[in-house]
Amino acid sequence: MSKNNLTNQYLDAIEEELRRAVLRSEEPHLGHFDYMMAYHLGWEGEGSGPEARGKRIRPLLVLLSNASAGGNWQAALPAAAAVELVHNFSLIHDDIEDDSPLRRGRVTVWKKWGVPQAINTGDAMLTLAHLWLLRLETTTSPTIAFQSTKILQNACLLLTQGQYLDIAYESHASLPMDAYWHMVAGKTAALLTACTEIGALTAGANEARCQAFHQFGYSLGLAFQAQDDILGIWGDAALTGKSTASDLLAGKKSLPIIYGLNQGGPFARRWAEGPIQPAEVKGLADQLEAEGALLFTRQSASEMTRQALDSLAEANPTGEAGQALIDLANQLLSRQG
Amino acid sequence: MSKNNLTNQYLDAIEEELRRAVLRSEEPHLGHFDYMMAYHLGWEGEGSGPEARGKRIRPLLVLLSNASAGGNWQAALPAAAAVELVHNFSLIHDDIEDDSPLRRGRVTVWKKWGVPQAINTGDAMLTLAHLWLLRLETTTSPTIAFQSTKILQNACLLLTQGQYLDIAYESHASLPMDAYWHMVAGKTAALLTACTEIGALTAGANEARCQAFHQFGYSLGLAFQAQDDILGIWGDAALTGKSTASDLLAGKKSLPIIYGLNQGGPFARRWAEGPIQPAEVKGLADQLEAEGALLFTRQSASEMTRQALDSLAEANPTGEAGQALIDLANQLLSRQG
Repeated sequence: MSKNNLTNQYLDAIEEELRRAVLRSEEPHLGHFDYMMAYHLGWEGEGSGPEARGKRIRPLLVLLSNASAGGNWQAALPAAAAVELVHNFSLIHDDIEDDSPLRRGRVTVWKKWGVPQAINTGDAMLTLAHLWLLRLETTTSPTIAFQSTKILQNACLLLTQGQYLDIAYESHASLPMDAYWHMVAGKTAALLTACTEIGALTAGANEARCQAFHQFGYSLGLAFQAQDDILGIWGDAALTGKSTASDLLAGKKSLPIIYGLNQGGPFARRWAEGPIQPAEVKGLADQLEAEGALLFTRQSASEMTRQALDSLAEANPTGEAGQALIDLANQLLSRQG
Repeated sequence: MSKNNLTNQYLDAIEEELRRAVLRSEEPHLGHFDYMMAYHLGWEGEGSGPEARGKRIRPLLVLLSNASAGGNWQAALPAAAAVELVHNFSLIHDDIEDDSPLRRGRVTVWKKWGVPQAINTGDAMLTLAHLWLLRLETTTSPTIAFQSTKILQNACLLLTQGQYLDIAYESHASLPMDAYWHMVAGKTAALLTACTEIGALTAGANEARCQAFHQFGYSLGLAFQAQDDILGIWGDAALTGKSTASDLLAGKKSLPIIYGLNQGGPFARRWAEGPIQPAEVKGLADQLEAEGALLFTRQSASEMTRQALDSLAEANPTGEAGQALIDLANQLLSRQG
């Protein structure tokens, strides 16, 4: 079986598992409740289909970590569904918090059914995530299920802490670098860390190996975010200035922007004057680059990538899944869009 | 020790346990995050104090169920804190969903710090609840901790299902009775059921006794809600028409109102014409009573109360805590305000 076949097999199984986790109520009075979740997950409604579902990176990380640590990946499926549901709970709530009308080109849940139903749908998805995770009791063992619950709940706490910082920082004129890393450790790295660690744990890996998978997920998350921040300013979509993909237009406190603000040069002075306009995007991206922000962010991303790959080597992923995991990491860290 | 002393001892211990569960981050950059939770829980900020904290009925039910089933109540403290945090998570989100600017006379979290921070603060409180519950692993056993996690997560799912129905029903002209009971089973009874069942479980009670405690909590929740619905129309605060405590002004689909709508008489015709005004409250309450809604709701509340007390008798609560539990149930079910 080629690498693509392996990943495709996993992706099909993930989708089936997610459906089992979410579409559970057969009572007709709850049909629309389930429908809202099915809509968000890309299964139902206008624009549904593979494009609407996202890349399912987190559940793939669970299954690949599990299989490459010598596990039976089917046993980790409840965890794979759980992390994807946690991710999507956070997207439903983030979309309200960021006032985003669209996600992946589709109308967001709050925009379609109102803020009250969207808040509650997110709450339900978070609960379904943790409920489904408990199924590890039968696919692995009660001890592993309990340990996985601890890991995922801790990740959720870090996620809310990171989200708190993100919202709080919006009103700050500038930020120290460590504030950025605190935020990203919660917003991006915490859940990826849980994915790789639970993957190894459900494979029965020993503590040292679980810890190496944990570290891999953590550094991967930080590197992924730094890479994302580069694309948010110098990526193709961002540079046109027509897309809200540009972090300059969105006024986002990304790593290169914080670097630029801390330089106190022309970029920082322009930023302080008020919202950036589409016509300025290309010029300001050049200015930020001239002030060293692109180089700095690339160096940060490289450093985190190096750490991620070191931890992955220490985790010693084996077999076809191990190669697929290394490929997925490289792909995430060198992506251009 | 008198009953009051017992309850007061429990209440002090609950408050200490809640503080340990919530105020955990010593990192200064998260100080304000904790502060928002401490504000909501009535410990900090304007109007803080015992009046701002609510009655802590749910954690009391956990500890009294535990002690009256022969347990060591201190061992159940993690569960007591957890159910109160779940309740308060739902209040933070409900206040956004209902657009409520005040709770217990204090400005709500969303009104004070904005909807984005309030959504996220609720998410964090839900997560802290489940994280803290896992402490039962050391105070009881891993098996009991795992079983309690299942019970509380299931209650949370029912809670979100009930909340979904509540929001969905706002736009319905009338409702069948079973729709009301579906909603209340989720919104009110599910969490009370978890309280009494986890109380018994952490005491090491056998399955039949846990089931009796479960049934007690469930019927108590339904009776409590029916009683609440009576007070919402014929209680002192509701009858003045100056208070938003009146379910007639709020347009709430409570049990007597659904009964009146289903009669299709003068009350239903007035309801269909648009929002009730304060000057009409007393007259419409009389009209509803004349149509039989008060009698019907009293009969429903009595029936549920009888079921609750039957289940409680079957649960055979013993000792001083047992008497306190019976007293608490009677107090909740005969309250006038």
